[in-house]
Formats: sequence, structure tokens, C-alpha cells
Amino acid sequence: MPTSHLAGPVLVIGTGLLGTSVGLGLRAKGVAVYLQDISPTAQAVAHDIGAGQPLDSEARVAPELVVIGAPPDVTATLVAESLLKYPNSTVVDIASVKGSILDAVNADVRLSDADRARYVGTHPMAGREKSGPAAARGALFTSMPWVICAHQLASAASVKTAEALAIDLGATLHRMDVTDHDESVALTSHFPQAASSMIASRLLNAQAHQLGLAGNGLRDMTRIAASDEKLWIQIFSHNAKALIPILSGMKEDLDRLINTLNNPTGHGALLDLSQLMSEGNAGQARIPGKHGAPPQAFALVTVVVDDKPGQIAALVADIGEAGINLEDMRMEHSAGHQVGLVDVSVLPGRRDELINVLTNNGWKVAQ
Amino acid sequence: MPTSHLAGPVLVIGTGLLGTSVGLGLRAKGVAVYLQDISPTAQAVAHDIGAGQPLDSEARVAPELVVIGAPPDVTATLVAESLLKYPNSTVVDIASVKGSILDAVNADVRLSDADRARYVGTHPMAGREKSGPAAARGALFTSMPWVICAHQLASAASVKTAEALAIDLGATLHRMDVTDHDESVALTSHFPQAASSMIASRLLNAQAHQLGLAGNGLRDMTRIAASDEKLWIQIFSHNAKALIPILSGMKEDLDRLINTLNNPTGHGALLDLSQLMSEGNAGQARIPGKHGAPPQAFALVTVVVDDKPGQIAALVADIGEAGINLEDMRMEHSAGHQVGLVDVSVLPGRRDELINVLTNNGWKVAQ
Repeated sequence: MPTSHLAGPVLVIGTGLLGTSVGLGLRAKGVAVYLQDISPTAQAVAHDIGAGQPLDSEARVAPELVVIGAPPDVTATLVAESLLKYPNSTVVDIASVKGSILDAVNADVRLSDADRARYVGTHPMAGREKSGPAAARGALFTSMPWVICAHQLASAASVKTAEALAIDLGATLHRMDVTDHDESVALTSHFPQAASSMIASRLLNAQAHQLGLAGNGLRDMTRIAASDEKLWIQIFSHNAKALIPILSGMKEDLDRLINTLNNPTGHGALLDLSQLMSEGNAGQARIPGKHGAPPQAFALVTVVVDDKPGQIAALVADIGEAGINLEDMRMEHSAGHQVGLVDVSVLPGRRDELINVLTNNGWKVAQ
Repeated sequence: MPTSHLAGPVLVIGTGLLGTSVGLGLRAKGVAVYLQDISPTAQAVAHDIGAGQPLDSEARVAPELVVIGAPPDVTATLVAESLLKYPNSTVVDIASVKGSILDAVNADVRLSDADRARYVGTHPMAGREKSGPAAARGALFTSMPWVICAHQLASAASVKTAEALAIDLGATLHRMDVTDHDESVALTSHFPQAASSMIASRLLNAQAHQLGLAGNGLRDMTRIAASDEKLWIQIFSHNAKALIPILSGMKEDLDRLINTLNNPTGHGALLDLSQLMSEGNAGQARIPGKHGAPPQAFALVTVVVDDKPGQIAALVADIGEAGINLEDMRMEHSAGHQVGLVDVSVLPGRRDELINVLTNNGWKVAQ
């Protein structure tokens, strides 16, 4: 059994996708887990797939840690109730917004500052387009960022327990205060979600043959528009303050672009468009690379493959046998055709070697 | 030598990424290709990589087809000059905008309607983040849409020649008039590009540690923001008319969202947010699936792999040996970690079988 930093037991309240994934991950580490959900079905599913033991709401346990895995709008209440019910437990929540929950915990008159010292807000940056306990997986947090927001009253011991949870689940620790967290996720997660939904909305009235021209660009821009409505309306409303300045900045850019396009041959129009593109280039280049490394352009090699079983396998096997690491791989989807292109990304220094290997193995490398 | 629909020779004027790729693809089909570019370097590179024979601007040839692969702002002039210089040739252009070029060809007083009958505007929906002849590849158009815009004066013979070009290069034909084309690409290509650039612009002033939380959502939304500035400012300005209503629709959504978030607990606020998400869900669901099939949700299976050579190869080999077709594959990139998650997409009916195969082969399937 792998060693864990948490001693357990851990009580997970709310067995949706994230709570159940916490249970599965901790069970794999040998930590005892109790499960509780207002939905008997969700609780039973989480139990059935091995996320822990169901806990009757009247049962008396003394967990080391209580994890609140509930929607943002009920999280603060469940945190407060757990702090009162389990007077020796650390209580963490894993909701995507932190400021509004901390404000509510601080405003709850039932709690003493000694109670609040046992609360730590956290946010694992993991999720799926699916929701519910059946979509849970113990490895959901593996190598993903997990933000720990130690507030002013939080005790060192409780912060350490919260961090042990993230470490036991294989996540990467990020320490931030709640404001910094909320502004960071507004920019890197909530704003992209809102933008993707607004972009996808534009497709509602398009004619079907127009959408036949959709390529990877549009697909990438609208993928997260398929996300869960119920969760996101809460995230948006709880993080409104941090989202508004970002959306307003985009609105200014959009206003400027529409004005420019209303007179595309006017003085300064091309300069305005050039600025739009170059600012986008520069912003995109700031996103960190894999493994926290500086942004790095991988070398891209494109291979033509038949769309049938075994082709991708044979391709990747040839790359692997040459000892070249595959940094990324994308298949180009397009309508009406059975032949496909696969973009293979490798470190730039291995590019020529890769092309040689593939060509010698009979692959059609596009170039 | 594979048989071609074009008899040749074909003259490619403008040996950038697309023009050179046309040359490479036609040479692979055995069609004779002449190359011409105002940049002697670009012309020499295209020749060196096998895209065709350089043509001196004073040489006398009688091409079956002239392909103009130039930026939008000089395309109409080159079309007109080619129609005059090669009185028996079909002339096509491959620029991303069609209405403004046809307008200019129709307005050019040097041309007769008999000349205009030999012109066909076309648009291959292919490209790369890179530009220039060195990035060209003969398979660039394989299985990608190629729009043929036969205008009122175009002769049936010239349209057939234009279509033969697309077919010889392995593309999928789409027939549209210029207005329909310009509106379709405004929605599926030009608008996503503008939106991606505006989203990436927001990252310019972010602090580095905030960007450490970037996940696949933000990466997908900003990937095409890295595109070529010079090309896109021309596309935006030439397709302004079709872009404005789409951008204005997004601006209305953005205004509504900002208003809602200014009073997130107000009457109707959650309903507004719900509408934003559900419209995005519905719009996203309209994008056609692979091979022109109706949108289809593939089943996703997530596998934990070590980030070292051979792991992905072994995984894909096991999938291939089971006779299961890999519909898509994504690697989850995250900062600071050497362990990775790979999302494997297969047809829903093969999901359970895949999980069995992987588990039996010792893979850690997340669930």
C-alpha cells in the first residue's frame, strides 16, 4: 500500500465528480474514507465504485479532515456546519471560487475564530466535461494544480493537513490568497469558459452547410462550451467581481474592432488590426509550457495516415522505438474523408531524426 | 504515377505556404508545375523542395491553369493580369476571402466578360500556424474542405478545371456563391481567429504565477492567437462586412453578461447566466463530427502514463492490437509534473472492451 501523508479518516461531503474522485484517490492510498451526500443515489454510486464507506448523517465519527465537495452556493453553509459538528477536524472545500466562501464563513455568527482556524479553502484545477460520481476517477488530480488559500485565521496545522490532501492525490501545490486565486482563475478558467460559450452561441442560427467548413480552430474555441450549465452559472455569479474587468477589457477590444471594420480602408485601420493580432501573439506566447518550463515551441511533423485500426499504433510505435518522446499529438478532423493527418510534436532538436525514422519506415511525412 | 484530373501544365503565382503546397501536391500527381514569385528567394525555396520549375516572368508558356497564391490585397490584380497574359488559361485564386476579389475582377475595365468567364474564385480551408514555402507540404489539402465559388459569368469548363485542382489535391469539394462563402468563413474561421486574439490579449498584463494555473481550456482558446499577423489583417479588412454582424452579436452577449455580473444576485441574473451556458451548449453541439457524420460524442477513457519514450507507443499499440480505432487522443499538459494523463476517444460501443483490454495489459485506467 503506498504511504499517505494523511492519517485519516477523511469524510467527503458531496459525492459528485470531484468529491468522489477525492474518495477514490485516497482509498488507493489506503486512507479510510466516509462518504455523505444529500442524494442517496449519488452516495450509493460513489460507494459502489469504491470511493469509501457511506456515512449515516447521525453517525458519530471524528475525521482528521472533512472535504466539502458541493456546489459553490451551499459550500459555505456546509463548511460552517462541519466546523461545528466536528470540533477537532480540519475542514476544506474544493469549490472553484474562494473569496465569496471565505466571506460567508467569516460572517457566520455561529463560528468562533478558533473554528475558523480549522477551515482552509482549496481549489483543485481539475474537471471533466462530464459530471456526477460515475465520471469520477482517482487520478483526476494527478499532476494538476491544486491551489491552497490559507486565510489570516487559518492554523498552520490545518493548512498542513489541506496540503497533505493535495499531495496524497498527486497534485501540484500552488499557494495564493483568496483574491489572487479568484483573479487568477477568472483569467485562466472562468473568462475562457464565458468566451467559449458566447462564441458557440453564434453557431445557433448558422445554416448546416456553413458549419461544414468548421475546422480545428472553431472546434478548439468551442470545446469547453459543452460544459455543465448548473455548475458554471454559480461560478460566474460567485466570481463576478474578478470577471467584470476582464470581460470589460474584451468589450473594449471588440468595440474597437467593430469600429475599425466599419471603415476598413480608413486611416489607421490596418494598424488597429495589426495591433489586435500582435497583442494576441504576445499574450499567447506567455502561457507556460509543459512541466512548468518556459513556453517552448515544439517542432511539428505531419504524417498522412489511413483512418483504420492499427495505423496510429504503428506510427507511435515507430516513434517510440526510435527513443523519441512524443510531446503532443493531434489528429486533424475534417468532414467527408477517410484519410487523416496526424500532427506529431517533438522537441525541436529531435525533428530531423524523427522525419528520417518515419520516412525510413515508409510513412508519408507531409513536406 | 497516380492519375490526375488536370492535364497541366499549371502555373503557380505566389510560392508561399499555400502556393508551394499546391505545387508539391500536383508534382506528386505527375502534373507539370511552373513557379513564379516576386521574391526570388521564395521562388528558389519552392523549386528546391520540389514544387515545380521556376518560370522567368518573360517566358512564354500556355498553362491549362494559373493558380494565384498571393495575399488578398494583390490577388485581384494578379488574377486580371493572368487572364490577360494567358488568354486560354483558367485562372483561380486561393485567397481566404472571395467577395472583394470578385468585385475587383468585375470592376477591372481591362477585362472582357469572356476573360471573366475563365476566372473561378476558390478557397482551400487549410493552413498552418507557420507560413512561407519551407512550411509547405503536398498533403496540406488532404481531406480538407475546398470551396469553389462559381460566379455568374464563370464558364462550365473553367469551373470543372478549378474542381479538378481540388480533387487532384485530395480535398473535399464544397460549392457556394461568394456571399455564402464569405459569411460561412466569417463564422467558422475569421470570427474564431479574432476572438482568440482578443482572449490572448487579456494575458498580456497577467502576473506569471497567475498563468501557472493555465489548463487545456485556456490553451485551446488561444492556440490560433499565434497565427500570422500580416495575413490576418488583410483577411479581416477584406471580409469586414460579413464579420461585423457576428462580432456585434458577441458584443450584445458580452454587454448582457457584464450587466448581469454587476448585480449577480439580482432578479433574473441566474436565468441570464443559464441562458449564456445553454446557448453555448446548443451551438457547440451543432458542429459536425468527423467524416461529415452527425455530431457524435465519443467515449473517453483516461489512462495514466509516465512521461517518457515508449509509453504512448505501448499504449496505442495495445489499443491497435485489440482492433479498436482511436478516434482522438489528447495529452493533458500541466505544469511541474512528469506524470501525464492521456484521454483516448473511441466509439461508445467499444468503451468497455477498451477498458478491459487496457486493464488486462496492466494500464492504470482512471475511474
